[in-house]
Amino acid sequence: MSQKVIKNDAITGRDVDFAQWYTDVCRKAELMDYSSVKGFIIYRPYGYAIWEQIQAHLDRRFKETGHENVYMPMVIPESLFLKEKEHVEGFAPETLIATIGGKNNLEDRLIIRPTSEVLFCEHYAKIITSYRDLPKKYNQWCSVVRWEKTTRPFLRGSEFLWQEGHTMHATEKEAREETLAMLDVYDQMGKELLAVPFVTGRKTEKEKFAGAVETYSIEALMHDGKALQSGTTHFFGDGFAKAFSISFQDKDNTVKAPFQTSWGVSTRLIGSIIMVHGDDNGLVLPPFVAPIQIVLIPIQQNKPGVLEKALEIKTALQALGLRVKLDDSDRSPGWKFAEYEMKGVPLRIEVGPRDLEQGVVTIAKRNDGQKTVVNIADVVSTVPSLLKTIHQEMYAHAKAHLESHIHSIHTLAQLDEALNQKLGYAKMMWCGQQACEDKVKELYNATARVLPFDQTAFAETCPVCGEKAHKVVVFAKAY
Amino acid sequence: MSQKVIKNDAITGRDVDFAQWYTDVCRKAELMDYSSVKGFIIYRPYGYAIWEQIQAHLDRRFKETGHENVYMPMVIPESLFLKEKEHVEGFAPETLIATIGGKNNLEDRLIIRPTSEVLFCEHYAKIITSYRDLPKKYNQWCSVVRWEKTTRPFLRGSEFLWQEGHTMHATEKEAREETLAMLDVYDQMGKELLAVPFVTGRKTEKEKFAGAVETYSIEALMHDGKALQSGTTHFFGDGFAKAFSISFQDKDNTVKAPFQTSWGVSTRLIGSIIMVHGDDNGLVLPPFVAPIQIVLIPIQQNKPGVLEKALEIKTALQALGLRVKLDDSDRSPGWKFAEYEMKGVPLRIEVGPRDLEQGVVTIAKRNDGQKTVVNIADVVSTVPSLLKTIHQEMYAHAKAHLESHIHSIHTLAQLDEALNQKLGYAKMMWCGQQACEDKVKELYNATARVLPFDQTAFAETCPVCGEKAHKVVVFAKAY
Repeated sequence: MSQKVIKNDAITGRDVDFAQWYTDVCRKAELMDYSSVKGFIIYRPYGYAIWEQIQAHLDRRFKETGHENVYMPMVIPESLFLKEKEHVEGFAPETLIATIGGKNNLEDRLIIRPTSEVLFCEHYAKIITSYRDLPKKYNQWCSVVRWEKTTRPFLRGSEFLWQEGHTMHATEKEAREETLAMLDVYDQMGKELLAVPFVTGRKTEKEKFAGAVETYSIEALMHDGKALQSGTTHFFGDGFAKAFSISFQDKDNTVKAPFQTSWGVSTRLIGSIIMVHGDDNGLVLPPFVAPIQIVLIPIQQNKPGVLEKALEIKTALQALGLRVKLDDSDRSPGWKFAEYEMKGVPLRIEVGPRDLEQGVVTIAKRNDGQKTVVNIADVVSTVPSLLKTIHQEMYAHAKAHLESHIHSIHTLAQLDEALNQKLGYAKMMWCGQQACEDKVKELYNATARVLPFDQTAFAETCPVCGEKAHKVVVFAKAY
Repeated sequence: MSQKVIKNDAITGRDVDFAQWYTDVCRKAELMDYSSVKGFIIYRPYGYAIWEQIQAHLDRRFKETGHENVYMPMVIPESLFLKEKEHVEGFAPETLIATIGGKNNLEDRLIIRPTSEVLFCEHYAKIITSYRDLPKKYNQWCSVVRWEKTTRPFLRGSEFLWQEGHTMHATEKEAREETLAMLDVYDQMGKELLAVPFVTGRKTEKEKFAGAVETYSIEALMHDGKALQSGTTHFFGDGFAKAFSISFQDKDNTVKAPFQTSWGVSTRLIGSIIMVHGDDNGLVLPPFVAPIQIVLIPIQQNKPGVLEKALEIKTALQALGLRVKLDDSDRSPGWKFAEYEMKGVPLRIEVGPRDLEQGVVTIAKRNDGQKTVVNIADVVSTVPSLLKTIHQEMYAHAKAHLESHIHSIHTLAQLDEALNQKLGYAKMMWCGQQACEDKVKELYNATARVLPFDQTAFAETCPVCGEKAHKVVVFAKAY
């Protein structure tokens, strides 16, 4: 019964050792477990159910915006992978390669997909011939493999679950619009589902995706002041299309290369949820992504009427489409309180004989611990609005944390203070030279997260080199 | 524009060359395409959407029956794979093996999962310690890799999509019940979703899954009289559990090994749909699994009111939750008729100016070509029941074909006639010796599909050896 003992252990304090706190939460909330291969984690039911909520939200949005799901092979022949030079240079060092199939050595070795641009391109070359075939807006749900040296659950894995959209368009304008539209879908998902606000913008040349013309990103801020890149969208121009001989006959009868995008988010979003919202008691889940939104805990459940009433409330809440669990196991109420606190269940409803005598139940909010006594007759009307309130409070809380950690920088001393002490984002004017970007990395181990969409200048010079600056950039230490 | 030309080509006749007909349908209905690696197909949007319907149905049923989704690593260390002897002997010859990760040779080579029993067992060994931890009822949606020599789209691939359920139970009785309950979920899915009837039963010792104590199967009958194993469930006893040191402390304080099951269906079901229902004009999709249930085709769509009315009908049908497509492209109605016939869309609604003058539209059923003229006001009430009717007709048709192809065998001559001429299932009494099973394979290239659940004896002797027979068995040629 060692598992139960572990479960009730106190977890490391969040401000004592954030990294250890994170690992404790991942394991003790039963989100994941390690397998025997480094970096390949097991997504346990509770962790996978969070991913299923994210999938359901995004899949609906993708379909509403005209995308179709497909499934491409999980392997890429090495010869095909080598076709786009920048792309292969970016990914080759971290590939897992299969060399034996059916007991024979493979002539063309197979790379387990780290991303599927080349597979989509090979297919698009076959099915795109006319303007009538455009746009092609495909998405794929799958796992990808990147052989990482340092791995952490959900944040950096040798295998992780994700979706990858790959689209082809007749015009550059349309492809550029798609790149931004999908970034917006991700940004909205953060706001509506995860209660996570993002800093959004374009990546620098140095930080952009291997082979892309432009990369855009949503960047979240963790409790410890580090940034987490939570999703990216890429505009490829027609580079891959030309490398893969994809062309179409346009309405004017000329033959052209189409313009391409790709975009993806992964189970890294689960890491983002944990590190933005979690507290010293464990996970705190935003209500709309929580696998269990309400847990019903009977007190003195053997007393007549207690379980019956709990079941009645469960049924009524489920009828509203809510995700409810009634824990009628033989554990003590105290054990259950700790357990579902650790698991971050947004609402706990306590159903006990004394309360029942008065026709009430006690409802506790996970995000701030606030308790309310509610008439049983009002539970069904109260709970949905309570869930909305929790979502709004969590979003506002995360947003305040984010905004109080965006530091406007005018001098190198301020940059030093921001990146070494205050943490969070250092927003500064930048000369645009990679030398200064490299210097910040060298001095503070911080990277340019994005050139934010709002490029309103607030200073004349780059604090690193003192030269004339014309770009706004945001630096941070990041996962 | 080669694609368009291919699309309108006539496909090979179903009774001219069934194998070629099948390939033609797969490609021309745009269900799949080949990639550059043999046996790794591309699931195109229309094919993948069928799989999504199957997933939605089964995922709901799995959750209703208390199962939880998880995700396990896609790789299995070779050392772990070798733990269960029979299992490894069954799968080792067809594994894809990764030997290089991040440019280094791997000490413990990684097998790309052909199935995940050993991964689940390794995990269960860590999380099961008490009777309180049982049952564990997990399912996983993923792809698996089996390095096949001969491959065919959906039927036999080096990579295919599937679900694999893996459960652990405190008692043998409960595990055996689970094995049969999940077979029933599959059987019902055939009846309710795919309109495919199955012959169900237990596999012989020779045909059972590597490492299982018992394997059960749903077997469909294709148009050409060959059987297609469409899903299996396995009872493992406690063999794997002991090999992987999985044990739990029971209520009586003794330490026991739990009992295990696994079960799976794959995208092979798409092959089953194609070969059971398809005809000389292409795919015929059962309405509840069809990605497009109704296609609206405007006639003379430039005439005033035509497109408006078509759109109005589309909106009204979508409001019922139906999957509707309005094709208002500049193709001719004739092209569109052929296209959606090929794609097997269950209902076509023609909206033309002459019909509109009379306040009617023409509705055509894909399964039998029957056309009805319907008042526009009645479309919304007619279509749902028409879809139900089509489903019932398709199921009845497939069931009649199946039943007329189950031949009761008393003599070797009858067996010969059944397996060489009549085709379909040869149902006979069997002595139970593998020698006779081998003999049938040798003579007719047919295999024992199942020992059906109904074991009512109808003869005294085995027609192969003439010895006393006590088992009913069903043989067939199979994919």
